[in-house]
Amino acid sequence: MKVSVLGATGYAGAELLRILYNHPQAEVVHVTSESHTGEKIADLYPHLRGLYDMVLESMKDIEAIGKDSDFVFIGLPHGHAMKVGRALRDLPVRIIDLGADYRFRDTSVYEAWYHVPHTDPEAERVYGLAELYRDEIRDAKIIGNAGCFTTASILALAPLARAHLIDVNTIIVDAKSGVSGAGRSPKQANHFPELYDNFRAYNVAHHRHTPEIEQAITDLSGEATVINFTPHLVPMSRGILATCYATLKEGVTPELVDAAFEKAYSKEFFIRLLGRGGYPSTKEVRGSNFCDIAWHIDERTHRVIVLSAIDNLVKGAAGQAVQNFNIACGFDEKTGLDFVPMYP
Amino acid sequence: MKVSVLGATGYAGAELLRILYNHPQAEVVHVTSESHTGEKIADLYPHLRGLYDMVLESMKDIEAIGKDSDFVFIGLPHGHAMKVGRALRDLPVRIIDLGADYRFRDTSVYEAWYHVPHTDPEAERVYGLAELYRDEIRDAKIIGNAGCFTTASILALAPLARAHLIDVNTIIVDAKSGVSGAGRSPKQANHFPELYDNFRAYNVAHHRHTPEIEQAITDLSGEATVINFTPHLVPMSRGILATCYATLKEGVTPELVDAAFEKAYSKEFFIRLLGRGGYPSTKEVRGSNFCDIAWHIDERTHRVIVLSAIDNLVKGAAGQAVQNFNIACGFDEKTGLDFVPMYP
Amino acid sequence: MKVSVLGATGYAGAELLRILYNHPQAEVVHVTSESHTGEKIADLYPHLRGLYDMVLESMKDIEAIGKDSDFVFIGLPHGHAMKVGRALRDLPVRIIDLGADYRFRDTSVYEAWYHVPHTDPEAERVYGLAELYRDEIRDAKIIGNAGCFTTASILALAPLARAHLIDVNTIIVDAKSGVSGAGRSPKQANHFPELYDNFRAYNVAHHRHTPEIEQAITDLSGEATVINFTPHLVPMSRGILATCYATLKEGVTPELVDAAFEKAYSKEFFIRLLGRGGYPSTKEVRGSNFCDIAWHIDERTHRVIVLSAIDNLVKGAAGQAVQNFNIACGFDEKTGLDFVPMYP
Amino acid sequence: MKVSVLGATGYAGAELLRILYNHPQAEVVHVTSESHTGEKIADLYPHLRGLYDMVLESMKDIEAIGKDSDFVFIGLPHGHAMKVGRALRDLPVRIIDLGADYRFRDTSVYEAWYHVPHTDPEAERVYGLAELYRDEIRDAKIIGNAGCFTTASILALAPLARAHLIDVNTIIVDAKSGVSGAGRSPKQANHFPELYDNFRAYNVAHHRHTPEIEQAITDLSGEATVINFTPHLVPMSRGILATCYATLKEGVTPELVDAAFEKAYSKEFFIRLLGRGGYPSTKEVRGSNFCDIAWHIDERTHRVIVLSAIDNLVKGAAGQAVQNFNIACGFDEKTGLDFVPMYP
Repeated sequence: MKVSVLGATGYAGAELLRILYNHPQAEVVHVTSESHTGEKIADLYPHLRGLYDMVLESMKDIEAIGKDSDFVFIGLPHGHAMKVGRALRDLPVRIIDLGADYRFRDTSVYEAWYHVPHTDPEAERVYGLAELYRDEIRDAKIIGNAGCFTTASILALAPLARAHLIDVNTIIVDAKSGVSGAGRSPKQANHFPELYDNFRAYNVAHHRHTPEIEQAITDLSGEATVINFTPHLVPMSRGILATCYATLKEGVTPELVDAAFEKAYSKEFFIRLLGRGGYPSTKEVRGSNFCDIAWHIDERTHRVIVLSAIDNLVKGAAGQAVQNFNIACGFDEKTGLDFVPMYP
Repeated sequence: MKVSVLGATGYAGAELLRILYNHPQAEVVHVTSESHTGEKIADLYPHLRGLYDMVLESMKDIEAIGKDSDFVFIGLPHGHAMKVGRALRDLPVRIIDLGADYRFRDTSVYEAWYHVPHTDPEAERVYGLAELYRDEIRDAKIIGNAGCFTTASILALAPLARAHLIDVNTIIVDAKSGVSGAGRSPKQANHFPELYDNFRAYNVAHHRHTPEIEQAITDLSGEATVINFTPHLVPMSRGILATCYATLKEGVTPELVDAAFEKAYSKEFFIRLLGRGGYPSTKEVRGSNFCDIAWHIDERTHRVIVLSAIDNLVKGAAGQAVQNFNIACGFDEKTGLDFVPMYP
Repeated sequence: MKVSVLGATGYAGAELLRILYNHPQAEVVHVTSESHTGEKIADLYPHLRGLYDMVLESMKDIEAIGKDSDFVFIGLPHGHAMKVGRALRDLPVRIIDLGADYRFRDTSVYEAWYHVPHTDPEAERVYGLAELYRDEIRDAKIIGNAGCFTTASILALAPLARAHLIDVNTIIVDAKSGVSGAGRSPKQANHFPELYDNFRAYNVAHHRHTPEIEQAITDLSGEATVINFTPHLVPMSRGILATCYATLKEGVTPELVDAAFEKAYSKEFFIRLLGRGGYPSTKEVRGSNFCDIAWHIDERTHRVIVLSAIDNLVKGAAGQAVQNFNIACGFDEKTGLDFVPMYP
Repeated sequence: MKVSVLGATGYAGAELLRILYNHPQAEVVHVTSESHTGEKIADLYPHLRGLYDMVLESMKDIEAIGKDSDFVFIGLPHGHAMKVGRALRDLPVRIIDLGADYRFRDTSVYEAWYHVPHTDPEAERVYGLAELYRDEIRDAKIIGNAGCFTTASILALAPLARAHLIDVNTIIVDAKSGVSGAGRSPKQANHFPELYDNFRAYNVAHHRHTPEIEQAITDLSGEATVINFTPHLVPMSRGILATCYATLKEGVTPELVDAAFEKAYSKEFFIRLLGRGGYPSTKEVRGSNFCDIAWHIDERTHRVIVLSAIDNLVKGAAGQAVQNFNIACGFDEKTGLDFVPMYP
């Protein structure tokens, strides 16, 4: 399959190139960047030297790129993908957007949280969280790849929401992310000496991944869900750990909780269940497409605490995009993705 | 005042020596270590070279040490301080224990969580969290210095609990600590390559700081309190950030929340209020005795999220011990403690 | 090919398993550990969960393992591989030792620096630095895989030594390594809080990689070589940067230096030349088998400064072992090794 | 003494404020910033909240600031201090410049390396490295505070150069610095994810601290000296380790080397000699004004390797400035500077 990467100079774009290099069924035909048009991708990302000799193009002639490609991966800031989606509507090319533009069924939710009008609301789109929406992904024209925090959070909570074991309106997700999640543009706040040996929260009560989690939990549970989601910045490069709290419904036993996870994920290659009492850690999934999940039950408070760990750039972005690509192409879902986490 | 440090080779002990070196009213007369008796403290902690020339003694003759000292600071694993307390009961020396032995009013709670019998249950003791128990500390024989996680958590929640603004049984404390909190003994789990670029939780639902927080919130609110407390390990040396969640009672406005914090802490030198919407960070308090606090109100969920940051070895251990010492001696509370955080 | 890994629980052993998992021509048939016999490798290294289900065996019956295997990789402390070498001498199995036992042509040098007698001095062996000893590796019974610091240092200096452009006795190698190079056993010195935000040298003037570098430079230059080698510990997990100094011989121009590097490495896939004035960085090779090299000429001092970067666990250990394995098997040298560095 | 800090918003300026807060003889009367005029310093550096309530002024009316102040500390980019020096020439105020403008006796060297004309070449100035130029500092009008790398390097080499024990033209300084040395302005290269878990060199053979080291070694040895100096960036916030190599002159014994260090520094409070075979580490001096020094002699190569560690923001900048201030005021040199390194 011929694939193109729009916005290849962000961390997610570079990670896509890392993964696609070893994908036996994908050939990268175009990489684009508006701010670095004409430069070699390997000059911006010297780790790609000797592996990618491509020059970054502009996406101004998006139709030409669309005609050349079977799939277009989009790694652009929100607001841009919907323009691409419109422009490519009538071409056979399919789209996997790593941004937020196509993640919401109800575009008014998107508009409320992202503060821009949605210009492609009628597009056929599917939420790109492979383990939960696999069937819809298979034939989708546009796949709105799930966000990084949301992937970790939804995968952690989905089995319990779907089985009606928790009161969904008690959900609190306290999430922690490595700094690569904040993108490649230098900012005072992400300057090395400011973050090193430092830990802090940000965007408390108004992070944009909140409604994305709520949409999925509402879907799965059938109940309107409002949650708290709190992101934190960990002084490390990669990785997300989500610590998810919810109150168990009356009569829910630990065994019911265990069974819900087993039922949901026992056949999923990319989800590794560590069981009740386990401790996922970000380094154990680093560089891989795995999501490791464990859960704890506090009998004193009748709460369940679910822990999930992913690599934000892989299962939280580029890896998930390739997983969705594999599904959409009818390939084995693991194709080009079954590499081992890099430890230590 | 003549002071001695029992268990001077742990990180909290070494931090005490760092602070006491510049304390104008304290003279360190004995430092002890059972495993390094006869060695120089500066050989174990070379950063003390040229500043401390003392030799580590055994505490076998604890009475002699007690007679020599006005105050004894104890930095030993739990279970040891209560023996020291008994042995020094009849001497005029006063005790500040950095461990857990004297933190619980109800020793059965201690016994249930620490799995050892308490051998000095009738000791007169006070919980050593200066901002909340200042009056009791003034004349106490034994001060059970508050734990690191507990200091951050209780200071964050106390104003709301005391003012009855929150439903105390909805409290969830999601806390994150630098690795120095795990002590100086090398372990597989804390080996550098295992933790670097890694993040994980531990002791979910059964960390021993849980009942300590519950005791204080119960005290302050007058309501029996059961909470969730979840600690995490951040790949950094020092610092704790506590993210505390609670549901606001009906009718509680943001202004009432603001007022509760102002009333509680506006005169406290070591508590810096960053206000509603602020973001404390561990580096902004690193090396200092400050506790920075901010709060957020989520109108969608009716929850308040309080963030607090301390240096676990200072306000969470040695600094708080010196603050308690200052109170107990009648000194200005800032004596020897008003240094500036080390940033960046 | 059937391969076994002796000493699979060290970091180099685990890294071998990471690489071999995706190697199309290798099947891991035995993994051994004396201290964890009977345990699952994935219990010791949870990042391998779902990928390796193998149980660690003892290597007591080394002959059975040898009979089962086409290749044995050895990741044991020095002194053990030579026993294995003797035991397997008459079997067709071939050996790749990641330790030092088989690295020295002159075993008296080994004995002088490692302080143990060499018990298999007559073994046919070859020094396993693929780019320099490829022809010998092809048919070798025993390959003494080059050390991590030595790989970075020798590859940096080889072109200049071989072309007689430098005075080899002015060589100074100032090398810096991530902490995984120190192994997985916890020690006080490598306890997380001790190393974090810290930097120091170790083993100045007597590190065991010194004679290994000297052997190769002597080989290449034809001149007896004595050098200074100074290792340092960088507070990070992986990666080595070697900064190599040497005085240029009279009349050596920058162009001659450039030409020497081009001639030596322009056809080597795993060596990426950044050219005169370039700056390799460890993260640009992290997780990959690349060695990035650049050089600078100081006209004021007539010295050349060569910089080289590798991942100590890949090109400095497991990756190089697989590269040697590929050569020894007659496979394309990149087989299973052409993955992209993990950045950022 | 009334002191002002020009350019208070850089890391060195902020560190000056940290140290001066506890200095019993200094009162900060003005802090300036051209880009943040009118803002509170504590808004830019929240760690100063509750400690400094000052508003940043412009230095446009430098004369008024000069008249108000006994001392002016300058933390501005090179090229600015010489203008301040000229403007304040006829006022009694004295100047301590943390930049390079007043470090060179021969301003043509400054001009050659900094590529700007020197506009105050006739100013009376002294090189502000306290241990070596104490007598000149006492009465100086302008003190050109030594650079961070240079302080570590010169203090390491001075005893050997002065005693003529080394061939000064064999000196190679391989130095490693934490990232705070690169300043507070965010840049792509110092963006957190780019540096974390990464190590690299920069400015090989042309870093501006080179001629500063050469000037001092020439001074001390009486021989024209040309050296190699290579800086590296360590993924940490603070600290410099300098690894200094030089060939010993014929007949120089280890005892002569030991004696040279003892003679030079045995009475210096801020220099801690770890002796022959020792290993300084940056964390053991972190936050303090100490310079820890050790040395190794390689009998095989007849080279001495000297290791020195400082905190680049303290002994390498703000602490040294205060030390110079103490000397210039006739105070005890330790005044306000005898605090303990922050470990771990």
